[in-house]
Amino acid sequence: MPIELALLERRLDELYAIGAQPGGGAYRGLYDDAWATAVKRVERWLNGAGLNTRRDAVGNLWGRVEGTNKGKSIVTGSHIDTVRHGGRLDGALGIVAGLTAVEALLNDNGQPRRTLEVVAICEEEGSRFATNFWGSRAITGGIDRVPDDIAQAMRERRLDPVRVSSAARDDIDTFVELHIEQGAVLEAARKPLAVVSAIVGTAHLELTVTGRADHAGTTPMELRRDALAGAAAMIQAIESIARSLGEPAVATVGKIRAEPDQVNVVPARVVFTVDLRHSDLGARRALEERIRSLCRTIASERSLKLEIRLLQEHPPVPMHADVRALLLRAAQECGVNATEMVSGAGHDAQILAARCKVGMLFVPSIGGRSHCPEEATQPDQLELGATVLRQALQIIAY
Amino acid sequence: MPIELALLERRLDELYAIGAQPGGGAYRGLYDDAWATAVKRVERWLNGAGLNTRRDAVGNLWGRVEGTNKGKSIVTGSHIDTVRHGGRLDGALGIVAGLTAVEALLNDNGQPRRTLEVVAICEEEGSRFATNFWGSRAITGGIDRVPDDIAQAMRERRLDPVRVSSAARDDIDTFVELHIEQGAVLEAARKPLAVVSAIVGTAHLELTVTGRADHAGTTPMELRRDALAGAAAMIQAIESIARSLGEPAVATVGKIRAEPDQVNVVPARVVFTVDLRHSDLGARRALEERIRSLCRTIASERSLKLEIRLLQEHPPVPMHADVRALLLRAAQECGVNATEMVSGAGHDAQILAARCKVGMLFVPSIGGRSHCPEEATQPDQLELGATVLRQALQIIAY
Repeated sequence: MPIELALLERRLDELYAIGAQPGGGAYRGLYDDAWATAVKRVERWLNGAGLNTRRDAVGNLWGRVEGTNKGKSIVTGSHIDTVRHGGRLDGALGIVAGLTAVEALLNDNGQPRRTLEVVAICEEEGSRFATNFWGSRAITGGIDRVPDDIAQAMRERRLDPVRVSSAARDDIDTFVELHIEQGAVLEAARKPLAVVSAIVGTAHLELTVTGRADHAGTTPMELRRDALAGAAAMIQAIESIARSLGEPAVATVGKIRAEPDQVNVVPARVVFTVDLRHSDLGARRALEERIRSLCRTIASERSLKLEIRLLQEHPPVPMHADVRALLLRAAQECGVNATEMVSGAGHDAQILAARCKVGMLFVPSIGGRSHCPEEATQPDQLELGATVLRQALQIIAY
Repeated sequence: MPIELALLERRLDELYAIGAQPGGGAYRGLYDDAWATAVKRVERWLNGAGLNTRRDAVGNLWGRVEGTNKGKSIVTGSHIDTVRHGGRLDGALGIVAGLTAVEALLNDNGQPRRTLEVVAICEEEGSRFATNFWGSRAITGGIDRVPDDIAQAMRERRLDPVRVSSAARDDIDTFVELHIEQGAVLEAARKPLAVVSAIVGTAHLELTVTGRADHAGTTPMELRRDALAGAAAMIQAIESIARSLGEPAVATVGKIRAEPDQVNVVPARVVFTVDLRHSDLGARRALEERIRSLCRTIASERSLKLEIRLLQEHPPVPMHADVRALLLRAAQECGVNATEMVSGAGHDAQILAARCKVGMLFVPSIGGRSHCPEEATQPDQLELGATVLRQALQIIAY
């Protein structure tokens, strides 16, 4: 029996209404009022579906139904926080589809063989504090200290920052999450569903190009050491390298600042960032090395000084082969030949992979839009995603 | 008899000390205290040299010695205001050299045939208010209205804003100005002196490139409409066009801003400026047209929207043939083969050209530095510039 689409949509609408913003979209920041209301709403749904609920030390909400075989749990879900002016589906879909799927399974098949859990992870987006993956890091025991601002907000929700380590779990067998793609790859390929093969590795670089400020009128072109002209050549090179490597390599220059930033002065200094990603660690590093090397060459040809700083780095995380196979089989049993793709965005699964087998399903994002009020997915694709998730849980837990 | 270098240097030092800044350099903003002190100091020097002084309605200071032949005046001088943290020579040199040259002529040769005047022009730099060429525009009758803030500052100096039109002159025959180059052309060519052939025409453009904001991780390279990658291609093209046209064409991208300016978001919009200059109006327009056309092509290839706005435009101003010949002859008589060059910076001469014959002499700037405390010229070149100016005034006024 497929998932009831009307129920899924109604629950998504209800969550989306919590934290609705004047300028459009919703905002549920970690531990804020909208966040607390949303957690309560999901708790009610989980209880209504017959799951036992509890909140752990950081506020992750767990709904659980015991299996006849004890053993480790099969977990599904996603994060409940949103970016500012966030959309209707990012995070919410994984929670709503997970609980709706488990509810349907319990109705149709009764008690499972394996223990099933649905989780609403408290935070993934960096929605309010200078942190992200807060919920999944607590589950893997990865939080060493609680920053003061977060501790204060936790106490306001009657969560004890000192007890954070008690949220760690070592009894999860498999975590599977349905999420929107947040890009336009599936739409462009006219595919309704993907099984994620890996989550890309990311590095953020900051490049500082130093030349010399000169009068824009009195300095002939060949006497200049123009930091912005040099940076422009580097930005061009970075784009070319990523294009020539082909998918899933991407490189993005997102931030740029020039000094002194005057219309009639040759720029003395330009600072810009590079976000670069690849699903293979070696390839990610090779991409970074080619960018570093070509930018150094450009700087030296133009007598510019170049400093490169690594701002942050996350390794790529492959999804577990067993879970990929499970999800592909589930899709097939629902009549769909799912494609496999790399996730360019980060997800809780990449953190949880340290403690359990992980896998993800993607449904398309219309126009590739996400993190904005326009975030949407075709209803039949929402239904398909939830149905395949249900099928996968049935295969593995019954 | 050459100019006395020690006297020239001492006067430059005295002016430089007026408005000295804590962070280095001097600042004399139009109508401020340092400005008023400097005008008074120059007035004293002019009177000491035997010139009759007066201030016109906007505060230009004139020192005058009547010629035996009445007729129109021969004028030399420069502006007395400075940029913030300005150097020792910009403007000051033209005033000090002018008055020192006229003083020497009066000492050596007595009353001239033509009336000689030395002017300290009140403002050229945009030093304090949203205006520039304030003094020379008043001399040419080019000020239609006085902005409120300037009117207020004028009244504080006992200048009557209502009388501005009385500063207009139609009895100037020739204006000749000694100035530092403010670039490194003479230094690179190892030339001690140049006669300016023309002051470049300038256009300032603002280009707005609009693409689409996308997730830096989930959007493959070929699905992007990256405004910054497009802008980088345009900045490269602008540099190439100016380089390929050769001197005196220059084009500078000085200001740039990206939106949303986030490390992990493909830029949706980039705004940048282009300052482009050429001494020939047709060539300046051709340069602009090539830039507009190539940027449009780049935008269209990348499915980006491009808007181009003309922020301001000044036509090129050729120096008068008679004055160029005079200055070249004067240099020759001082034993120097002066080179001719185009001024990439704007000067009062370009405004005064509407009412009289104009010409300029340039001495080198060490390292091309200007508008900064490091602004300097070799002493023998300062001496040469003032000596050639004196020789030119002697030829034309005696």
